[in-house]
Amino acid sequence: MPTIDGARLIATLRRLAQFGAYKTGVHRPTFSPEDVQSRLWLAEQFAEAGLEASIDGIGNVFGRTRAPGRKLLIGSHAETQNHAGWLDGALGVVYGLEIARALRDDPDCARLPLEVAAWADEEGHYGFFLGSRSFIGEVSEEEIDRARNNTDGTPLSAALERAGLAGRPRATIVPSDYLGYLEAHIEQGDYLDEAGLKLGVVTGIVGIRQYQIRFSGEQNHAGTTRMARRRDAGAALVALSHALSDRLRRISGPRSVWTTGAIRLDPGQSSIVPGQAEMLFQIRDAEESQLRRFEEALEELVAGADAAGPCAVELKTLWTVAPVPMSERLQAALTQAAEFRAPGRTIAMPSAAGHDAQILAKRIPAAMLFVPSINGVSHHWTEDTSEDDVILGCQALADAAEAIMRNGGV
Amino acid sequence: MPTIDGARLIATLRRLAQFGAYKTGVHRPTFSPEDVQSRLWLAEQFAEAGLEASIDGIGNVFGRTRAPGRKLLIGSHAETQNHAGWLDGALGVVYGLEIARALRDDPDCARLPLEVAAWADEEGHYGFFLGSRSFIGEVSEEEIDRARNNTDGTPLSAALERAGLAGRPRATIVPSDYLGYLEAHIEQGDYLDEAGLKLGVVTGIVGIRQYQIRFSGEQNHAGTTRMARRRDAGAALVALSHALSDRLRRISGPRSVWTTGAIRLDPGQSSIVPGQAEMLFQIRDAEESQLRRFEEALEELVAGADAAGPCAVELKTLWTVAPVPMSERLQAALTQAAEFRAPGRTIAMPSAAGHDAQILAKRIPAAMLFVPSINGVSHHWTEDTSEDDVILGCQALADAAEAIMRNGGV
Repeated sequence: MPTIDGARLIATLRRLAQFGAYKTGVHRPTFSPEDVQSRLWLAEQFAEAGLEASIDGIGNVFGRTRAPGRKLLIGSHAETQNHAGWLDGALGVVYGLEIARALRDDPDCARLPLEVAAWADEEGHYGFFLGSRSFIGEVSEEEIDRARNNTDGTPLSAALERAGLAGRPRATIVPSDYLGYLEAHIEQGDYLDEAGLKLGVVTGIVGIRQYQIRFSGEQNHAGTTRMARRRDAGAALVALSHALSDRLRRISGPRSVWTTGAIRLDPGQSSIVPGQAEMLFQIRDAEESQLRRFEEALEELVAGADAAGPCAVELKTLWTVAPVPMSERLQAALTQAAEFRAPGRTIAMPSAAGHDAQILAKRIPAAMLFVPSINGVSHHWTEDTSEDDVILGCQALADAAEAIMRNGGV
Repeated sequence: MPTIDGARLIATLRRLAQFGAYKTGVHRPTFSPEDVQSRLWLAEQFAEAGLEASIDGIGNVFGRTRAPGRKLLIGSHAETQNHAGWLDGALGVVYGLEIARALRDDPDCARLPLEVAAWADEEGHYGFFLGSRSFIGEVSEEEIDRARNNTDGTPLSAALERAGLAGRPRATIVPSDYLGYLEAHIEQGDYLDEAGLKLGVVTGIVGIRQYQIRFSGEQNHAGTTRMARRRDAGAALVALSHALSDRLRRISGPRSVWTTGAIRLDPGQSSIVPGQAEMLFQIRDAEESQLRRFEEALEELVAGADAAGPCAVELKTLWTVAPVPMSERLQAALTQAAEFRAPGRTIAMPSAAGHDAQILAKRIPAAMLFVPSINGVSHHWTEDTSEDDVILGCQALADAAEAIMRNGGV
């Protein structure tokens, strides 16, 4: 059984967090100088752990094995959200690295076929799961040509050029080479922390439907336009948004969530009745049927408001992600290891956030392990997980990885 | 009795509308090249009408009279909102000019002491009623030094420099020199148009209270943060805004209005629960008591939401304008003239928009006359008033002006 080195694991995570250190967290957006440096550094660590290190044309860092047989891939993403936490994706990458070291250090395990990947841009600074989607062959050159940084508008092509990655080939998966993919991640919610649990075995990744709702009324003077004749797009937005919360609350599943992330009134002046308004609205659930139930309610409310007036209301689906179930065989291996390392403190749970595992799951069996997030804080520099929990998660993942590799996928 | 020349009036308005012509309207922001040219042109027209023309250090254009005795001042503002209508402030300026011409053309009237003013920046591109406030002595040099263009941030001092106005003295009123101030304007609402009325004699200018309401919750991940533990500042905003509309509707006066002009969620991303939110909320009414009633309801709802949680809610008054009653003596003169020119189609009404008249009213008697706005459109390039109504309004104002000047203020 490979035994991970907890102190080495923590030290490696702390070292990685120095690339773009921000307060107690990290600011390391994709292809920032700090991100590029951290990828070069990770490649060195992969090599030192006995893996064949490489960085491909989209910034994915691979640690390939020379061992024969079908391989197990462990990974996550290396970059962070803006001003975010020190663990998040880094945790899963360094887990892979530490398990590779533990295998190397154990003569009984040194030939187990483990590979490690640090994906690029899961956080979406330039696109949508760019690195893992590139690896499964879903990112075209056209998409790369079009992609822009969502904070400062830098073209992705320019960022790749600056990172020294332009023109490099992009690695693509050969599914038959792999037993499967494991990804560990902080939970990002407070479910484990609140319940005093230590490990979560992910059953599936929630589906997401992202909508834009637009309201068209009539822009006019906020003094001279009588209330009775206004076609106030902002007022229509508030009324619909209020009705929507009310309705969704009544038909919600146990772990459904919905979010209005942005509202814009146009022209957005204190003394002008808004003629146009727009909101971004999102629903998430692990069950397709629940997403459909929400969508039907949303469509009904939008149609009702549009018919009732005085503003036209239009619903547009911006993007959707179907719920992705995790591999049952890999879940079984994770559950066994987790129950062994944290008896009675392990639970099966959906992931409410998106992860590279949902991309890999399109090609090979995939599963995920969660460790607790203190107070559920995520995407913020105060994000944290206790060192004991970080170490526990890595050991459980190492156990499961060994079982999978020894048994050819459980 | 001075008889205005309708064709000349319309031709002058059309000529002025060529400065910054935009579609069927005008884009002539304060101190834009077009605005500066239009002021130079207005000064020429004032001189041709027999007045002593000048432009002061804040861009106010004056047509002074050489006639003895206390003077009647007629005016409005020359600049426009962005991409706005051809009449708005221009109407009242050209009415003054046309009445000056009509007096000059009538030997019986040529010695009546009329003055005309075209104020700068009533529309607030750089400040708050800058021209008329400067004239009554309420604009300090510090305010000018601080003022910036609200579209592009240009310092007012730089704009004045470029306009050739830097260093010129600013004219200041000597109240005892004046009988009073008359201002004509398009209604900007649809009250006259809808009722088939021709002239509105303004009883007072509504008071305005402008608030900012801020909501502080907790920014978090839109997937992993359960609904029950969210402190969603955007959701708190929608709930309060909805309750507010509901409450104000029930305690509204007959012509009260309220407007949420802007909403901002922070960080405004589709997958992030907003941690902060902000709305701009405004109430208007001609009655101070109604404004107080609204404000009490607002304060109560904000305090209730803040106490109930889960977000902190804070109410800040950004600025207020007290309701300004118009001079009853001047109203009487306007009503008499209006009833004579449009019998049965004249009404007394408050102004729901702010006007330079409310500034002048602090020093001298002031009153206003409204002409209909087709469909109540204002601050938009489609704003319009029929030429017949434009001519009728000018003649009624000329009649009232004569009566006031002959009788020393009615």
